Amino acid sequence: MAALMAANDGDAVAYGDDEITRTAIAQLCALAGAQSAQLVFTGTAANILGLSLMLRPYQAVICAESSHLNVDECGAAERVLGCKLLPVQTPDGKLTPDLIASRLTGRGDEHRVQPRVIQLAQVTELGTSYSLDELRELRAFGQDHGLLTYLDGARIANAAAYLGCSLADIAAQVDVLSFGGTKNGALGVEAVLVMTDGLADGAQYHRKQQMQLASKMRFLGAQAAALLADGLWLTSASHANTMAARLADALTCLPGVRLAYPVESNAVFTEVDEQIALRLQDDFNIHIWSESGDGNCVLRWMTAFDTSPVDVDQLAKAVEASFHVKPDRA
Amino acid sequence: MAALMAANDGDAVAYGDDEITRTAIAQLCALAGAQSAQLVFTGTAANILGLSLMLRPYQAVICAESSHLNVDECGAAERVLGCKLLPVQTPDGKLTPDLIASRLTGRGDEHRVQPRVIQLAQVTELGTSYSLDELRELRAFGQDHGLLTYLDGARIANAAAYLGCSLADIAAQVDVLSFGGTKNGALGVEAVLVMTDGLADGAQYHRKQQMQLASKMRFLGAQAAALLADGLWLTSASHANTMAARLADALTCLPGVRLAYPVESNAVFTEVDEQIALRLQDDFNIHIWSESGDGNCVLRWMTAFDTSPVDVDQLAKAVEASFHVKPDRA
Amino acid sequence: MAALMAANDGDAVAYGDDEITRTAIAQLCALAGAQSAQLVFTGTAANILGLSLMLRPYQAVICAESSHLNVDECGAAERVLGCKLLPVQTPDGKLTPDLIASRLTGRGDEHRVQPRVIQLAQVTELGTSYSLDELRELRAFGQDHGLLTYLDGARIANAAAYLGCSLADIAAQVDVLSFGGTKNGALGVEAVLVMTDGLADGAQYHRKQQMQLASKMRFLGAQAAALLADGLWLTSASHANTMAARLADALTCLPGVRLAYPVESNAVFTEVDEQIALRLQDDFNIHIWSESGDGNCVLRWMTAFDTSPVDVDQLAKAVEASFHVKPDRA
Amino acid sequence: MAALMAANDGDAVAYGDDEITRTAIAQLCALAGAQSAQLVFTGTAANILGLSLMLRPYQAVICAESSHLNVDECGAAERVLGCKLLPVQTPDGKLTPDLIASRLTGRGDEHRVQPRVIQLAQVTELGTSYSLDELRELRAFGQDHGLLTYLDGARIANAAAYLGCSLADIAAQVDVLSFGGTKNGALGVEAVLVMTDGLADGAQYHRKQQMQLASKMRFLGAQAAALLADGLWLTSASHANTMAARLADALTCLPGVRLAYPVESNAVFTEVDEQIALRLQDDFNIHIWSESGDGNCVLRWMTAFDTSPVDVDQLAKAVEASFHVKPDRA
Repeated sequence: MAALMAANDGDAVAYGDDEITRTAIAQLCALAGAQSAQLVFTGTAANILGLSLMLRPYQAVICAESSHLNVDECGAAERVLGCKLLPVQTPDGKLTPDLIASRLTGRGDEHRVQPRVIQLAQVTELGTSYSLDELRELRAFGQDHGLLTYLDGARIANAAAYLGCSLADIAAQVDVLSFGGTKNGALGVEAVLVMTDGLADGAQYHRKQQMQLASKMRFLGAQAAALLADGLWLTSASHANTMAARLADALTCLPGVRLAYPVESNAVFTEVDEQIALRLQDDFNIHIWSESGDGNCVLRWMTAFDTSPVDVDQLAKAVEASFHVKPDRA
Repeated sequence: MAALMAANDGDAVAYGDDEITRTAIAQLCALAGAQSAQLVFTGTAANILGLSLMLRPYQAVICAESSHLNVDECGAAERVLGCKLLPVQTPDGKLTPDLIASRLTGRGDEHRVQPRVIQLAQVTELGTSYSLDELRELRAFGQDHGLLTYLDGARIANAAAYLGCSLADIAAQVDVLSFGGTKNGALGVEAVLVMTDGLADGAQYHRKQQMQLASKMRFLGAQAAALLADGLWLTSASHANTMAARLADALTCLPGVRLAYPVESNAVFTEVDEQIALRLQDDFNIHIWSESGDGNCVLRWMTAFDTSPVDVDQLAKAVEASFHVKPDRA
Repeated sequence: MAALMAANDGDAVAYGDDEITRTAIAQLCALAGAQSAQLVFTGTAANILGLSLMLRPYQAVICAESSHLNVDECGAAERVLGCKLLPVQTPDGKLTPDLIASRLTGRGDEHRVQPRVIQLAQVTELGTSYSLDELRELRAFGQDHGLLTYLDGARIANAAAYLGCSLADIAAQVDVLSFGGTKNGALGVEAVLVMTDGLADGAQYHRKQQMQLASKMRFLGAQAAALLADGLWLTSASHANTMAARLADALTCLPGVRLAYPVESNAVFTEVDEQIALRLQDDFNIHIWSESGDGNCVLRWMTAFDTSPVDVDQLAKAVEASFHVKPDRA
Repeated sequence: MAALMAANDGDAVAYGDDEITRTAIAQLCALAGAQSAQLVFTGTAANILGLSLMLRPYQAVICAESSHLNVDECGAAERVLGCKLLPVQTPDGKLTPDLIASRLTGRGDEHRVQPRVIQLAQVTELGTSYSLDELRELRAFGQDHGLLTYLDGARIANAAAYLGCSLADIAAQVDVLSFGGTKNGALGVEAVLVMTDGLADGAQYHRKQQMQLASKMRFLGAQAAALLADGLWLTSASHANTMAARLADALTCLPGVRLAYPVESNAVFTEVDEQIALRLQDDFNIHIWSESGDGNCVLRWMTAFDTSPVDVDQLAKAVEASFHVKPDRA
């Protein structure tokens, strides 16, 4: 916010040709080892712009069935790219070479879309993180099979914090990625980073055509700069992860609460029976994420850069209290 | 072919405003009880044009995972409509109310595409046919849930023949459907039939924009007229169905050959073990349709309007001979 | 900026369901007499979202050749809407019934796109404003010819200030319009306002699909609210207009400087000979807008909410000085 | 037609992998000096498929305002390609380097679409033909400015006949072109020919996605083969041109009839005053092509492969008779 105030002082050249934005872009590229970066407004926009650089209309994207791209972007990929997604069911939101291979049938057959991009999310929609070894293995598989890799990094900071690695360590395993600011404390800014020669061609025109060119770009630049200053992006994410681990510990002490997926970021997914889920939903304005069959439900709990240990402990206590309410209330 | 020769005589008004086409369209509408009909070149085109009449870009189509629309149209739906398909795994290519209901989550949620159309195929990609009762049940379900129904009728003639019903009996259960000629003996013509008020608006512009307006439309009209004359469409399909049943009987007498799906049209799907499948593929230029796990494969055999009993019997005999070849040959 | 700081305090519900955004939307609708409003990030996005509500892919938009939509949005209309623009040459950026009528040929002809929307800008790309009478006449013409009207209001505040009318007075003459904040002092926010029954259907899905749904919508809401508070939108625009008039007066006193278009907003277009234009371009980082033939050039000068009389006078003085430089310098 | 009958004999491999189609494709490539050829159903489809090979969504096509692509394809380019057309007014339907240069502003400006393809038609929509020198000059201009060239050859046969050159002579000056059959006697077949390395990539998938893959491709192949046999394509076109010249001679002998454009193919455009135009329209089911101002109208007369000298003479006589009708009849 202070960074925005500073950016508001004085006049500036429009459309990103200002000092603040140029500096932020340069820092971001240096941090990731990227060739170029484009700032956009939302995570969906980052995904679509990134994929625009990699696809022709008859080519397809292999992604997890549960991915944000497939589920939560209201068909932006289909509308703006005109491309088909080839979703794969996964146990934990993560693709594997075998899962990807299952969608590689029909290559060379003119009746079929042609898989061209592996779309990963780091962290995944289910809060899990790929290890660097897993990313390397996927990279090698992709290269062996003529596939590019795109990584949705809306929460890449949480993955870097969890893995204890640099942004460049992750970025090196993909061709294009997004770097998310909005879910890590910014008002609203995401970046599209290009790692591979030739893929950035025309990116600025795609961005404008996709309605992501801010005339007062410096306000996006200032947000990005603030996140990068003193490693704020990483300390914020690290803090959120710690709070998630603390919450997971507290919740799993309650009877009947199990983790649905390992806690590898700032998200905790718990599985509880339906009666409890409905009561918690009622009390905590939390959505039921999914039904896992057998009368059980999965609930998602997110922590943020500004979640405090006290917040976590109070929440855990309140949840516990909710357990003791008479069942007939639900 | 004779119909084409006749259509070739003399001059005619272009773009479908000729006597042959007008008459064929009128007959087709009468046969189906349809409000309007548009002729196009291919089955894929019929599906896309039909769906164009029913969808806005943020709306989605619920279809079988195995459907031609989803698998074999090279992403035409995504590119031309800009819409997302919501595929559902089915045991036999057929949707049910329960299967459709599984994709109705997220209605009213602005992050999600909004299901608007149930896409059926009659017959399905797996050769099965919906009964009229099943179609009525799906229709009622759709109406209860604010969903329109589109029916891919590339082989609707085979379904009508199998069910012993009229075209209108099937058409009455849907909003828009295609009527296939190409797979029923025509050189290349399909029709899009609109059953429901208001849905035909702008159809002629969609057709032109989708590159389906023939300047010499009378050659499409003549094919349609020939199919309709003396019920040729139904007798051709009925014959092909009979030949499929004959082939199924012969093949299932062979050891290790099972039907993968019931034979309800002009397609026979057999399941055999992989060794045999590879040998048959080798000998009969037949593609392996899918692998069903456990070392088994599904093979598809199609009959046509011009398949003779002798053809079937010779094929069955040749397949039997192929079984007796030494296994090491494969 | 103060409004943003306030919006940053505490937690808030995401995606626009917060108090700040709801209130801003309600105020905006009240001010314009609109049925609904959607906030988006950029002026291009507002135009595309607004037009999405009014068009099917085979329909077309009649607009001025010089319009932002046609020239400066990098083909977003064609890519995202899939629709054709039908541009018309205008003397001053303004459409008239006669100019629109010139693009109404081919209606009902399936080979032609079908005009459906008149796209106006208020103020126009050339700084001119439609009078309320002109808007009423265009409205009547549109209604007589089955055409909807969309108004690009990126600078509608300047038009309201110039005409001395309310937002509602202008909005009442169109079906959908945008209301611009970015060029009137906001960091980056525009609204799409729907005036006519039925046209808002699905707007929220279009917005998400077009990558304009901010998760932290309250920061857009806060900007809109700040613009509306105490009529800031109108006083800012009014001030900018006054400064433009002052600048125009000063510039036209210089020898060889003529107004290219009447000054009816915060833009001044001057025509000068090419030698002078090149010198001014050199000295003032001003782009040559266009060449008007005969060795003359048009230059555009914009004023803003924060332009002071001193700024104007200093600029005018500097321009005058530039005139006295020896011609051989250019 | 005889070729179709022959193609109908016996079974054939589907989707173009048959002997007839393979041979026709090979002949066509040899004739044009092309690297590859794809058969499609219509002229619009050929244009869209050809342009698909050359464009990214932010790139634009410079074409004549009067071109078929711009006027008569119902916005297929905008919908299917998502690209903007940049039309240019021309005196005679032909582009020139200067006219093209007028649309090359804004290159490198991210707010503008980026011109990438020059779209020519040979013959043009106004019946004129580019000379080989003109084509060479355009080619050189394009190469100097980083522009590819696409040629709409729906009536390229008429141009080759008029210029007395080979198909290869014309094709050598462009990157991708279409070769029209439908307007030269075929039932309905067009080919897309690729001349330049790399541009054919993915053509077969574009074709399927654009709903132009015929399952019974041999019927398209047979039409193409028949056109190529014994140079039928050229003798048919040559005959049609001769008939057009004969008609032009006869019509221009009538008082008040002038040629609107030179006769360089099988089209004759005459300019007459409006009263006469309305009467001729009445009597000859001919559409008024355009109004040329001053109360004059342009009428288009087309000849075909099967127009006989007697047809022309009778028409000319009938037109003359129509002139002698009392003016009050109109």
